[in-house]
Amino acid sequence: TRVRPQVSIRGRSVGPIASSNAVGEEVPEFEPFMLLPRGPPPLTDYLDVWDVNMLKEPEEVNKQQHHTDRYANEGLIVRRGQEFQISITFNRPHDPSKDQFALEFVIGATPQYSKGTYIPVFPSEERNKLWGGRVLDTSDNVLTMGILPRADCIVGKYGMYVAVVTPYGIRRTKKDPSRELYILFNPWVKDDSVYLEDGAERTECVLNELGIIYHGAYDDVSERSWNYGQFEFGILDACLFIMDKGALPITNRGDPVKIARKASAMINSKDDEGVLVGNWSGDYMYGVAPTSWTGSVEILLSYANGGDPVCYAQCWVYAAVFNTFLRCLGIPARVVTNFFSAHDNDGNLKTDILLDENGKVDRSRTRDSIWNYHCWNECYMARLDLPEGFGGWQVVDATPQETSDGMYRCGPASVYAIKHGMVCYPFDAPFVFAEVNSDVVFYQRSRDGTLTPVKVNTSHVGRLVLTKAPGSNGRSDITSMYKFPEGSAEERTVLEKAEEYGVRRQDVTPPVADVALDIPSLEVKVGAGFDLALDFRNSSGQRRTVEAYTNGYVVYYTGVPSAEILFQSPTVTLDPRRKVIKVRPEDYMGKLVEQANLHFITTGKVKETGQIVTAMRVITLHKPRLLVQVAGTPRVSEEMLVTVQFTNDFKFSLENVHVRVEGPGVMSPHNKLYRLIAPGTTISWTESFIPRRQGPSKLMASLDCHALRQVTGEVDVHIEP
Amino acid sequence: TRVRPQVSIRGRSVGPIASSNAVGEEVPEFEPFMLLPRGPPPLTDYLDVWDVNMLKEPEEVNKQQHHTDRYANEGLIVRRGQEFQISITFNRPHDPSKDQFALEFVIGATPQYSKGTYIPVFPSEERNKLWGGRVLDTSDNVLTMGILPRADCIVGKYGMYVAVVTPYGIRRTKKDPSRELYILFNPWVKDDSVYLEDGAERTECVLNELGIIYHGAYDDVSERSWNYGQFEFGILDACLFIMDKGALPITNRGDPVKIARKASAMINSKDDEGVLVGNWSGDYMYGVAPTSWTGSVEILLSYANGGDPVCYAQCWVYAAVFNTFLRCLGIPARVVTNFFSAHDNDGNLKTDILLDENGKVDRSRTRDSIWNYHCWNECYMARLDLPEGFGGWQVVDATPQETSDGMYRCGPASVYAIKHGMVCYPFDAPFVFAEVNSDVVFYQRSRDGTLTPVKVNTSHVGRLVLTKAPGSNGRSDITSMYKFPEGSAEERTVLEKAEEYGVRRQDVTPPVADVALDIPSLEVKVGAGFDLALDFRNSSGQRRTVEAYTNGYVVYYTGVPSAEILFQSPTVTLDPRRKVIKVRPEDYMGKLVEQANLHFITTGKVKETGQIVTAMRVITLHKPRLLVQVAGTPRVSEEMLVTVQFTNDFKFSLENVHVRVEGPGVMSPHNKLYRLIAPGTTISWTESFIPRRQGPSKLMASLDCHALRQVTGEVDVHIEP
Ligand SMILES: [Ca+2]
Ligand SMILES: [Ca+2]
Repeated sequence: TRVRPQVSIRGRSVGPIASSNAVGEEVPEFEPFMLLPRGPPPLTDYLDVWDVNMLKEPEEVNKQQHHTDRYANEGLIVRRGQEFQISITFNRPHDPSKDQFALEFVIGATPQYSKGTYIPVFPSEERNKLWGGRVLDTSDNVLTMGILPRADCIVGKYGMYVAVVTPYGIRRTKKDPSRELYILFNPWVKDDSVYLEDGAERTECVLNELGIIYHGAYDDVSERSWNYGQFEFGILDACLFIMDKGALPITNRGDPVKIARKASAMINSKDDEGVLVGNWSGDYMYGVAPTSWTGSVEILLSYANGGDPVCYAQCWVYAAVFNTFLRCLGIPARVVTNFFSAHDNDGNLKTDILLDENGKVDRSRTRDSIWNYHCWNECYMARLDLPEGFGGWQVVDATPQETSDGMYRCGPASVYAIKHGMVCYPFDAPFVFAEVNSDVVFYQRSRDGTLTPVKVNTSHVGRLVLTKAPGSNGRSDITSMYKFPEGSAEERTVLEKAEEYGVRRQDVTPPVADVALDIPSLEVKVGAGFDLALDFRNSSGQRRTVEAYTNGYVVYYTGVPSAEILFQSPTVTLDPRRKVIKVRPEDYMGKLVEQANLHFITTGKVKETGQIVTAMRVITLHKPRLLVQVAGTPRVSEEMLVTVQFTNDFKFSLENVHVRVEGPGVMSPHNKLYRLIAPGTTISWTESFIPRRQGPSKLMASLDCHALRQVTGEVDVHIEP
Repeated sequence: TRVRPQVSIRGRSVGPIASSNAVGEEVPEFEPFMLLPRGPPPLTDYLDVWDVNMLKEPEEVNKQQHHTDRYANEGLIVRRGQEFQISITFNRPHDPSKDQFALEFVIGATPQYSKGTYIPVFPSEERNKLWGGRVLDTSDNVLTMGILPRADCIVGKYGMYVAVVTPYGIRRTKKDPSRELYILFNPWVKDDSVYLEDGAERTECVLNELGIIYHGAYDDVSERSWNYGQFEFGILDACLFIMDKGALPITNRGDPVKIARKASAMINSKDDEGVLVGNWSGDYMYGVAPTSWTGSVEILLSYANGGDPVCYAQCWVYAAVFNTFLRCLGIPARVVTNFFSAHDNDGNLKTDILLDENGKVDRSRTRDSIWNYHCWNECYMARLDLPEGFGGWQVVDATPQETSDGMYRCGPASVYAIKHGMVCYPFDAPFVFAEVNSDVVFYQRSRDGTLTPVKVNTSHVGRLVLTKAPGSNGRSDITSMYKFPEGSAEERTVLEKAEEYGVRRQDVTPPVADVALDIPSLEVKVGAGFDLALDFRNSSGQRRTVEAYTNGYVVYYTGVPSAEILFQSPTVTLDPRRKVIKVRPEDYMGKLVEQANLHFITTGKVKETGQIVTAMRVITLHKPRLLVQVAGTPRVSEEMLVTVQFTNDFKFSLENVHVRVEGPGVMSPHNKLYRLIAPGTTISWTESFIPRRQGPSKLMASLDCHALRQVTGEVDVHIEP
């Protein structure tokens, strides 16, 4: 075998760049002075450290004041830009006139003062140049210090030492894991670049573990609950592990822009063996189906415990786990859902649908895709790397897309910049702009291969952007944060601005249109038949005849067709104006995939004028719900019971059915496998749990099998102290 | 073993994105119409194609007008935005009134009209919506068409077909490799985003194969010749291969920004098994030493012939091969050298040097590095993705650096933006800004670990930026394109602007300085002894005493120290004002590495005032030259001889000595290994060659062995027709 030499940097780098928070800092216990002091050393006793109290219990001052009391983590957890306290017990009272000592905070290998990875904090305010430090209290041998980390300091896990200056050198306390502390982002203080003024949004986007994620269709929105679990045992360490695995230099970890960008790469497994393996195939035999997860905790703990990517995810799983990561570190974050999201088009504002000469969709030549919905994250931060005005909510997206500057990551991209077409600022703004602003262009292909654009739908894509409302279970429509109203003057200006920065659009002047076509929306239960209506409207005042083709497909939520279920060929006059197409359960039930979306496209040509009419309709089939019930006294540390119940109302058996249930602060994830649920039978699964924490929570359950996915249910609980 | 499932996208993507120019397009030879024509088909003979003449010889119109006649490539090579010609011989004269045909240009798998990968060109101007097309001439059965590719079309290798419409369907010519054509960027036309108005620069940066690369020190610049060889046989295909290997989507290949960015990643082997493996270790046993290469041709052909990364490169090799890539595709490009280039500091404008209490350099704590020089590329293009004003020269850099947004690539970053501190625009501008603008900050470390900045040198880094002058072998100082004059008001404004965008600087007000120190520059031959002078200047009018330490190191060109060769400890009064330190050959000769740089730092403390004085000096030891001579008549296709001669003037033997020689258009790369060159002996190597092309050229030779690197020589030749 041939030797394949690796890049060697011995002659070009003085040392490796510290990029792991797990690799311990090296600080000597005794550091002798280079030169012995002139004259004989003084014989006085030097100061000795007997004990250090980190004041790290949840009910003590630090975790209370820093909003970190809910972390299931024994270490001290504080937020930057805000004072915290440490008490030191010396061998004798501290004498400021002759005793010199410092608290030393260190992070990563080879800590350096000038890199902000080694920070000495002195008891006198005037000596401190990096972080603040002052004596808050002294009584006998015990001295309590207040330490104020800079509001832009590195976020992560620090080691803490007490260093005492003696005539012979510096003497330090031993390395002690119980004195480690975590410093997080602080959205509560103005100097932190993640400061979020709105208190309700801050509480929701940092402290709420209970999420709602929207899916389905814009005019028939479904929702599912999610346990972000950012305070659960092991999650904070898992977040640091992800940054270590991604080798994010320690010195970059004070910058929320760099952390969010790195995480958008690391949450997916592409390129870097990151957290989640994507799978849109329908075959989830080697892992957990994306629709089956109910929270982020299992996923993050599984990843951190070995570093192997976890199977499987689709967009909402990426977004939910990313959300846990961001909230856990203290960066305000939320999951948003964009309905009709354009994909894979790399800043090109067109999604093409090709019709043949007769106006029928040419499937073999139509390659672009519009996802029925797509979930991504917004995180809140100042953009110190950009001109003023682009701070605030930023899009980040961990779902691996085909093209985002050659790597599987996306953002942060300023939402304000996207709304205003200022897509020249990093990162990946043209990509996100296209996701909410693409036009759907219908081309007609003539015999010799030329394409003529015949219709442009400018309002289909980016139809609705939703996120959970702060402090309630309601929906917040944030479409207007991404775009100006359809047809407004501002909208036109923005599209022109984006074009200046290289976003390409189709220039189309389609022929005069006096016939309109609409397919009204429908709410349909899975397994039911329904009538699909085609409503034609003739505004010409003259006779019009339309030759209209209707295609129906079972599609993935990504818009990719799986099977054709319906084809109706043409000739309709405009009397009657409504044409009804019957869809029977047997047309689609055997062919359903995943989230059970049906997609209908009707296209046709008006005989008299040559006008092309088109309409599209996505129908999300409604799933049965799980019944989730609790019994027992909802009190901390008292046993309760949860029952998940489901009846198979279908005419077929369900096989290999996974049922899951969990609740933040209340119940860790449990799951159960049913090999078979016969038609007409009911399953009922009861588990006991012991709530760990008081306050409101939820028990969330999911049921998942090959034939039926995305079945969920939940129940609210309020745990008393 | 455990199954590790890969990401599956079956349900999320309609088809793979075409990202290879090598995978052939699929175009059917006969494409029947879906519906048979109504009524009986007409019985007239349809048009048939007998022959196609691509007019692709170097002396024919296309290659002459498109400046592509020097490519050693049999295919047609043209530039976009400029008309070229193709002649078609039919079975009978073409009758515009009834014969319908089109030339079809296709690129990549699954070509699509709406993606610009399938372009039909018709003989009538009004039918053409994408590229221009017109009949230039008809005589008998031969029709000559003029084709005008859009000035923003995809660059690469197209297939060409003639499609004739018959009543039954479309009939095409067979796939024929001899009818393939390359379309390149066109710096000669205004509509192309790589348009370069200055004719001399355009000729230099697109058509010149002979390069000069600067190295050494800013006040003692050395140069070496380089054979870019962008027109040599196989190079154009190698460039397309690189984009294919990097899976750059075909639809992105019309955009020079995307191509340059992708290539900055692909020219190095990190992340993507790209072209060149970096090695700064001094051990090049498994490959060719970076100093040994004389041109890009061997490297690119070796890579394209198998796809394995080539060993080894340092910065100028990366830059030179990148330059070949860019010029070959028609993007104007040049190699530039930045003297005293700050590295690895990720947008932090500081390079720290730590001194102990006495003013002596603390090597163990000084980790930042300044390269003696660093080479990167500039390429010329409009930046349609940015606001107006940021087009023109753009920095791209393929040398793998530690930190560039987590991936080993850099740029394009607008030089204008760097000069003006507008580092908020992509790509990687803060990084390049730091390379030319970092401050060198000297910190003094006190006993308890605090650091106090004591001196800032703001003019050391980015001292000089050089590139070869267009049309001559002279140097062009382009420092002023990167920065305003030191100390000017504009300079201050720019630094403030860059700080607004997150570039951090050290705020230092060092104590009053009335003693200055300078180490004058020296030109020293390798093997010689020399006197290093320390010049103190006391402007106080009072007595001053300095305790000055001088350290001498052998350093790599990256500034990384390899061995200490000198240490002189302190106490100097300011009379005499000059102190001389003798350096003997035996101090350094046994310790030399690579390019034989010596680095001296003198630091000291003024006793009376506490002021810290510092000075640094890099000495590049001058190497012996190779003697290169030619004999014979310099005429195309006549045999000539080249002799490379070298005398070992050292007192030691040279072992395993590689000698190379090559000349663009004149002699392909040859090399020879001498196992031993004893002291005092002379080697003389003669090879024959046959010039392939007329005009000026150069024969460039290098000699390289472990003990002596970067020995070069060259001779000019002018080949007569
Ligand atoms: Ca990844
Ligand atoms: Ca690479």
